[in-house]
Amino acid sequence: MAVEGFDFQIERIVSIIRDTGARVIGLQFPEGFKRRSPVIAAQLEAATDVDVIISGNPCFGACDLDVALLDKVDVLFHFGHAPLDDNALQDKVYFIEVRSGVDVSDVVRKALPELSGHRICLLTTVQHVHKLEDACRILEACGKECVIGHGDSKIAYPGQVLGCNFSAGRREECDEYLYIGSGEFHPMGVALATGKNVLIADPFVNEVRRADYSRVLRQRSAVIAKSLDAQVFGIVVSSKPGQERMQLARQLKEMALRHDRNAHILIMDLVTPDQLLQFKVDAFVNTACPRLAIDEVGRFSAPMLTPQEFEIVLGERDWESLVFDEITGD
Amino acid sequence: MAVEGFDFQIERIVSIIRDTGARVIGLQFPEGFKRRSPVIAAQLEAATDVDVIISGNPCFGACDLDVALLDKVDVLFHFGHAPLDDNALQDKVYFIEVRSGVDVSDVVRKALPELSGHRICLLTTVQHVHKLEDACRILEACGKECVIGHGDSKIAYPGQVLGCNFSAGRREECDEYLYIGSGEFHPMGVALATGKNVLIADPFVNEVRRADYSRVLRQRSAVIAKSLDAQVFGIVVSSKPGQERMQLARQLKEMALRHDRNAHILIMDLVTPDQLLQFKVDAFVNTACPRLAIDEVGRFSAPMLTPQEFEIVLGERDWESLVFDEITGD
Repeated sequence: MAVEGFDFQIERIVSIIRDTGARVIGLQFPEGFKRRSPVIAAQLEAATDVDVIISGNPCFGACDLDVALLDKVDVLFHFGHAPLDDNALQDKVYFIEVRSGVDVSDVVRKALPELSGHRICLLTTVQHVHKLEDACRILEACGKECVIGHGDSKIAYPGQVLGCNFSAGRREECDEYLYIGSGEFHPMGVALATGKNVLIADPFVNEVRRADYSRVLRQRSAVIAKSLDAQVFGIVVSSKPGQERMQLARQLKEMALRHDRNAHILIMDLVTPDQLLQFKVDAFVNTACPRLAIDEVGRFSAPMLTPQEFEIVLGERDWESLVFDEITGD
Repeated sequence: MAVEGFDFQIERIVSIIRDTGARVIGLQFPEGFKRRSPVIAAQLEAATDVDVIISGNPCFGACDLDVALLDKVDVLFHFGHAPLDDNALQDKVYFIEVRSGVDVSDVVRKALPELSGHRICLLTTVQHVHKLEDACRILEACGKECVIGHGDSKIAYPGQVLGCNFSAGRREECDEYLYIGSGEFHPMGVALATGKNVLIADPFVNEVRRADYSRVLRQRSAVIAKSLDAQVFGIVVSSKPGQERMQLARQLKEMALRHDRNAHILIMDLVTPDQLLQFKVDAFVNTACPRLAIDEVGRFSAPMLTPQEFEIVLGERDWESLVFDEITGD
């Protein structure tokens, strides 16, 4: 275990370098771990005679594999995320999941009195998936029923969620969710995707709180309302390997044309408010990372709809049938 | 000629679509022309039954060809730039140079009394290269000697400069430069690369002014001075096809190691101050777009050196031998 209890698996990486005979390796880190990269690179260069190239591109998930770097290295180590089904095809890529050593039992015990349901579904990110069984035992010892669901093919571990995939939660019958981890990003997604109560047990600050998504739902209604009269749509596609939904984008463009609206497909790597500023359209429809429309709401130069919200705008879907956009597998 | 006198060559593009039988085309625009993209896409879709995909990635030059988009289209139209030698290899790419129809003769006449030298070298961007002969005649009619230099293999037209290549100016003997065009970006580069007087004749605002680079030279000295004690360097490489100088980066890393400094190669697509913020190094060395170190000075979390400045820091080059970093051809 390394500093702050995150396991960067240096010994395993050194073994892989030796076993594969790699001469040039790439290291890719999500934003929160990038600052560790010079030290980790130095450790690997000291232990082997490998040449290290560090990816400086933004990285927000396994969807974000640095394909340009992949071409320049013998092996790419991607940190902080579990494999996605499509990325698993890349046999040059090793996912170093950076599990956390933090103890979760205290905060799970603290969460117990806040759980109103009987059948509790446990969810977390890959950093804590190895702790879910411990958490389960604590819940069961106190008379709760506990489920750890299997997600679809995008999901590597039972109980694991991504920012864009809550299938491990959606596929299980339960009264309530207990999310173990920090931040609001994932539990907010669980709440939006399932419509059920989500209790957050944050082991880093030993705090229990509830995910509140009412504000997000009001924002989504406002975005839809503002787009009802839009004539020109920019349909946003990301070229990132795990985010590209070009086929969906083409279907949405055809749908727009059938409804006498104009639509243009805009493709880019990283989708940002700044980058879309130059495109003068009445509304955007986002097929890239589903979080963009939610988490960056109000920051784009025009309302940004999810594909499902776009269907509502065109009258192809009822407001009542609005579901959270996810990138799902089989 | 289209609005504002820029020629987007719609008829030529329609012919190319018909001649090649392209079903899916890509359109890529530099930032200043991106807002035209929905209208141009609509024009092309109306004139042919082609499917258009618009690149939303930042684009600052022909160095910035959208290679991810290239894989998804039959033909890519890249607007606003002339071909670069390496990009010319891509036989799916058509460069639509977007020549300006603006008249330059008035502003060249206005510049005449400000020219102190006798032999004047004319420079401009691709938007005005077809006007250089006119400008030459005006100068010669008033007794000046006029040269329009041939650049290296990166340069498509006599007298053309890029933001990172001033070979069309450097290769000619002259007393002074007359730059025809708007902005400070290119003439500042000419002044820094040649050390000679550069007069700017801006045909859009009919204004004559002098490029002043003394502030930039002071900034460069400060950046070098701040980096003299740096122990850990981040050597920045861009993966953009026309900006990638990985071999140079490797040489610089080896040079650092010979001088008992640490260096890590950081590769990314778009290089921004935000993106480098996570990397805790004492100084950056930039091998990507040479303009970054100059134009974004002070915006990075550590001093950013050009390769030549890095050599000065390591004692491999004299301060007096500092030259402006360019990406040159043969």
